[in-house]
Amino acid sequence: MKQFMDENFLLKTKTAQILYHDYAKDQMIYDYHCHLIPEEIATNKRFGTITDAWLGGDHYKWRAMRANGIDEALITGKSADPFDKFLAWADTLEHSMGNPLYHWTHLELQRYFGITEPLNSRSAKAIYDEANRQFKENEALSVKGIMSQFKVYAVGTTDDPADDLAWHKNIAQQRDFPSKVIPSFRPDKALNIEKDDFGAYIARLSIAAEMAITSASDVASALIKRLEFFISMGCRASDHALSTSVAVFKSEAQVNAIFAKKMEGSVLTDEEIEAYKTFILTALARAYAKDGIAMQLHFAAIRDNNGKMFAALGPDTGYDASHDTNIAAKLSAFLNNLSLTGEVPKTILYTLNPKDYYSLATLMGCYQDGQKGKMQLGSAWWFADHKDGMEEQMKILGNVGLLSRFVGMLTDSRSFLSYPRHEYFRRIMCNIWGTWAEEGEIPYDLDLLGRFVADISFNNAKAYFEG
Amino acid sequence: MKQFMDENFLLKTKTAQILYHDYAKDQMIYDYHCHLIPEEIATNKRFGTITDAWLGGDHYKWRAMRANGIDEALITGKSADPFDKFLAWADTLEHSMGNPLYHWTHLELQRYFGITEPLNSRSAKAIYDEANRQFKENEALSVKGIMSQFKVYAVGTTDDPADDLAWHKNIAQQRDFPSKVIPSFRPDKALNIEKDDFGAYIARLSIAAEMAITSASDVASALIKRLEFFISMGCRASDHALSTSVAVFKSEAQVNAIFAKKMEGSVLTDEEIEAYKTFILTALARAYAKDGIAMQLHFAAIRDNNGKMFAALGPDTGYDASHDTNIAAKLSAFLNNLSLTGEVPKTILYTLNPKDYYSLATLMGCYQDGQKGKMQLGSAWWFADHKDGMEEQMKILGNVGLLSRFVGMLTDSRSFLSYPRHEYFRRIMCNIWGTWAEEGEIPYDLDLLGRFVADISFNNAKAYFEG
Amino acid sequence: MKQFMDENFLLKTKTAQILYHDYAKDQMIYDYHCHLIPEEIATNKRFGTITDAWLGGDHYKWRAMRANGIDEALITGKSADPFDKFLAWADTLEHSMGNPLYHWTHLELQRYFGITEPLNSRSAKAIYDEANRQFKENEALSVKGIMSQFKVYAVGTTDDPADDLAWHKNIAQQRDFPSKVIPSFRPDKALNIEKDDFGAYIARLSIAAEMAITSASDVASALIKRLEFFISMGCRASDHALSTSVAVFKSEAQVNAIFAKKMEGSVLTDEEIEAYKTFILTALARAYAKDGIAMQLHFAAIRDNNGKMFAALGPDTGYDASHDTNIAAKLSAFLNNLSLTGEVPKTILYTLNPKDYYSLATLMGCYQDGQKGKMQLGSAWWFADHKDGMEEQMKILGNVGLLSRFVGMLTDSRSFLSYPRHEYFRRIMCNIWGTWAEEGEIPYDLDLLGRFVADISFNNAKAYFEG
Repeated sequence: MKQFMDENFLLKTKTAQILYHDYAKDQMIYDYHCHLIPEEIATNKRFGTITDAWLGGDHYKWRAMRANGIDEALITGKSADPFDKFLAWADTLEHSMGNPLYHWTHLELQRYFGITEPLNSRSAKAIYDEANRQFKENEALSVKGIMSQFKVYAVGTTDDPADDLAWHKNIAQQRDFPSKVIPSFRPDKALNIEKDDFGAYIARLSIAAEMAITSASDVASALIKRLEFFISMGCRASDHALSTSVAVFKSEAQVNAIFAKKMEGSVLTDEEIEAYKTFILTALARAYAKDGIAMQLHFAAIRDNNGKMFAALGPDTGYDASHDTNIAAKLSAFLNNLSLTGEVPKTILYTLNPKDYYSLATLMGCYQDGQKGKMQLGSAWWFADHKDGMEEQMKILGNVGLLSRFVGMLTDSRSFLSYPRHEYFRRIMCNIWGTWAEEGEIPYDLDLLGRFVADISFNNAKAYFEG
Repeated sequence: MKQFMDENFLLKTKTAQILYHDYAKDQMIYDYHCHLIPEEIATNKRFGTITDAWLGGDHYKWRAMRANGIDEALITGKSADPFDKFLAWADTLEHSMGNPLYHWTHLELQRYFGITEPLNSRSAKAIYDEANRQFKENEALSVKGIMSQFKVYAVGTTDDPADDLAWHKNIAQQRDFPSKVIPSFRPDKALNIEKDDFGAYIARLSIAAEMAITSASDVASALIKRLEFFISMGCRASDHALSTSVAVFKSEAQVNAIFAKKMEGSVLTDEEIEAYKTFILTALARAYAKDGIAMQLHFAAIRDNNGKMFAALGPDTGYDASHDTNIAAKLSAFLNNLSLTGEVPKTILYTLNPKDYYSLATLMGCYQDGQKGKMQLGSAWWFADHKDGMEEQMKILGNVGLLSRFVGMLTDSRSFLSYPRHEYFRRIMCNIWGTWAEEGEIPYDLDLLGRFVADISFNNAKAYFEG
Repeated sequence: MKQFMDENFLLKTKTAQILYHDYAKDQMIYDYHCHLIPEEIATNKRFGTITDAWLGGDHYKWRAMRANGIDEALITGKSADPFDKFLAWADTLEHSMGNPLYHWTHLELQRYFGITEPLNSRSAKAIYDEANRQFKENEALSVKGIMSQFKVYAVGTTDDPADDLAWHKNIAQQRDFPSKVIPSFRPDKALNIEKDDFGAYIARLSIAAEMAITSASDVASALIKRLEFFISMGCRASDHALSTSVAVFKSEAQVNAIFAKKMEGSVLTDEEIEAYKTFILTALARAYAKDGIAMQLHFAAIRDNNGKMFAALGPDTGYDASHDTNIAAKLSAFLNNLSLTGEVPKTILYTLNPKDYYSLATLMGCYQDGQKGKMQLGSAWWFADHKDGMEEQMKILGNVGLLSRFVGMLTDSRSFLSYPRHEYFRRIMCNIWGTWAEEGEIPYDLDLLGRFVADISFNNAKAYFEG
């Protein structure tokens, strides 16, 4: 029997242990997609309490607490006592064995605070006090301390094209900052023409791009102008959230007419909405291809499913789910169109529904050309981001593509306490390679396998985004 | 090498064995959804032969026999010799290794008859004679004997709203009956407005509810009246079979017009059919929410796929399959609508296609509020109800929700010989927890893990349906 | 630690090893669906270099090389040096651990050439020279030598109805040919009425069938005439590629009008195209049923996704993917229609997307009747044809059907070097049975289990296609 989450956690064979400890563990982290707030990075934020750090905005934990029957007042309520919230979380955590939250939380306790005891309602008070004491006293628990300790080579934040990236500038000017902080280009608001606030956003984009926007063509131009600015600030990746792929191809004149219709206050048809999105996304993809920017497409989220709670709490509060639409036909049409002119950019395809892995992983193989691992199946995302899900994603990628060329893990997190998720991923990844080697399915060549695990841990991502 | 289906069957670690034998095995059974016939319960039915008991109505076995090339005369034929049928089944069974029928059948032989020898064409005669002898001689093989022996705390039968529940009354009046026999509310016939016999059913419902039914509004009222009667008889759950979710929202007046159109003999459009179903299901869901009734939704069956055999044998004879429609968008719309007024009832979502687990398990997380495990992912159902399927369902539930709050197993069976399926489930469930503990993925805390496995075996279901 | 791909490769238990070595290994091969070129078989082709043999037409390898960043000139280029291509492949192969190519390639090196060293860029030169030397010097590496060595009882080639099967005749007349070479009937071109070359194909079919074709009815008649010819040449199976099932039922007159519309040069609607396909496929299915021909339906490929490369290289060059359309409703309608008159032929259902397994495997169970394993879930296909995929396919088949009646493996290959894929399959299959036996999930009865593994390796297929 193995000890609870000890040094060989998830490493089931000797070879897996060697691969992790000798080749993967000490690799730097390239966290190429996250939701950290640049201001908090720039100002080297210190945390008040572990309640703030863990429960202030983490909708994964909120969902678990709701499933555990906790009253909403102790979840997102403003007036509840911080320890009462923490206690509710501690009880929920104990009931979440089997959920990645259980492992993430204990990895965080171990790596940030040196606490190895399981968190539950009995141990909650002592752990609460100890974590809060360390937050207050330990400089290593500042943002810079954390980034340094976890060898964070780079983080890719998620930024609106209209953002002035002032905090990125600030960070770039800090001489001793331990990590690169790179903006990522996320123009969802410029694509979501069906939303009520689209007009207001276009006005904001117009100001940021310093140009009038009176057509869809102008939107594309303004976005590309902002993309160039982002690139001048270090940007290497874009990011798009799409419930499914878009592939209604209409002429520039037709799309401009759709834009005009929207700006006049008319309601667009589904086909018109998709035509506009196809037009803008195509224009951007071409720009990404030209500039070597990686295009990240996130598919299959169905969001804001609880109207009452959306009204109370807004988006990103734990009311999203895995969609199940069909993706292959439209995504093929969209990428095929780009391929005709050789303008498929480096692309990472993510899905929130594992049923899509085969379609995505095989379709992406139709656009590989001339660059190692140009087309990527994104690491298991959000609801699929757990031990079984990562194993499934890596095995399917290996079965239909090249696992050795995988750019690997990203946290996708809003929290500075999420870096152990890279460790979690690396352990699972090393366990796959180690098992294969011990079973005689691949040669027992530690130098070679060690290179693969180091590549997937860090080198592939660095080469992919810096290349 | 382990012995064939011995006491540690499916329990691959010492911890799994301890959890099963010390914490799960002796828990009572809350079989909250089954298809037992109340009359057979009330009259304490005795079985004639093992052929009757096993092959009289079990379409799982019939399908296996057809796949094994057995002539239909030996499957559903009325004139075949009972032993010839049993022999055909015995040969089929031997060829069904890998199918849950193989394990179910041998668990039944062991637990009901004390027979540990594998059943096949060589052993068929001896086993046939011995089982038939025991059926004749052994009082413990009556319905009451069985329910007592297997510690069946409660069974939830499946009943039409127009049913008078006379046999439930009869059972309730039997002083010494070993189990609660609880009606479940299954109003499919009142929703299936597309069927030819809808009008006849409405007439039947009208009589049962003692009210005229001249509109969809009346249908809803009559059903709710019947629901109240069912509740007075102990009902704690409803049950709906839907090929996919319904979400066409129309006004009461519009839906009443659709109802009138149907009653006039016109053929309804797909949209009209869905609008009617949405209206009735919404009305019922609100009533369930008010009364604390659990709403069970069974998705993704595609039924009666063989017209010739349907004509010969009718429904539920082995000609159904797993559908593959998209569920997320409509189910989100349906539940979201209920959530706006805080009227999402306790809900259990089942699917016949495992590809839906991610969508169902994540979507249900958007409606958890205020009650432990209010929204449930139903246990692996029908074609998915096997060792691999149960593991998959529990692991996905754990990964995206809280396994510890799972209400667990139900037989969904037409047979009194199916109670070992709870044992089968518990062994698989204990094996999951035991493996995690031995691998160091969760703490080795037998008191805690023992509580979880007891909860999932029985306590959670009891609290869920009685709460 | 097991040695790399030794004699017990993939056989994780002693029982699995016994089952493979004593019962499966020496079974003959019935490769009932492949893409070998009859002329190459008839003329007992000898291979020039290992580059020709491996990289001349294998789009699996081409895809891997593209994902590895290899320049297209070294993949499909006509002027590149053969060793340079081989070296690029060797480097790619080393990076493909986790992909079935890695195992297939090393099984081929071991079984055809006796080379046990891993292939990579360091070993490439020596292996290249040795393989080429053997191709030149070793008669056993001719087509006939290979078929003899691998105990190939029969291969089913893939042939157009208009083909004259001259090479099949030639082979049938060769007295000493070691294997049966059986044509399979693949009338895709006669169904694909949406294609530009449909008219030209109909002209070709008209000549082959020696009859005028002026209607859809004539197409059906001509195809059935050709089918009878194929049967006279030994044909036992047909084969259809469908992105999804077809089920638009129109009258013969309506379908003939659709045919006429096409021949006049008009563009057909999607519904018209599907109606035509439904009509022809139904007519053929009835003929298959009458003549005992197995109908193979291959679902869920989405083809030619890269228009630029399609223009350069044509079809089947590595630009296909797994589709994700819904299949169940239409396939049910199509098969149900055949079932009404008792005309469902023996059928094998394949899918390129594992999400479809439940729907296919359960739906096929609705048409089993009177013949052991009449309806089959096809072995894991193309992108799903790997260790994990075969395990998944066999376990799902076992869980919802009868694994023991499975007709087993086929190569689907264009290469004479692919026969070790049967070995690969058999090892995986024996490992499943062996694991079950050692875990006590099935009886440890080597005679019985040995019969099952021999059946699935060879006997079931022989009985299925010759029966």
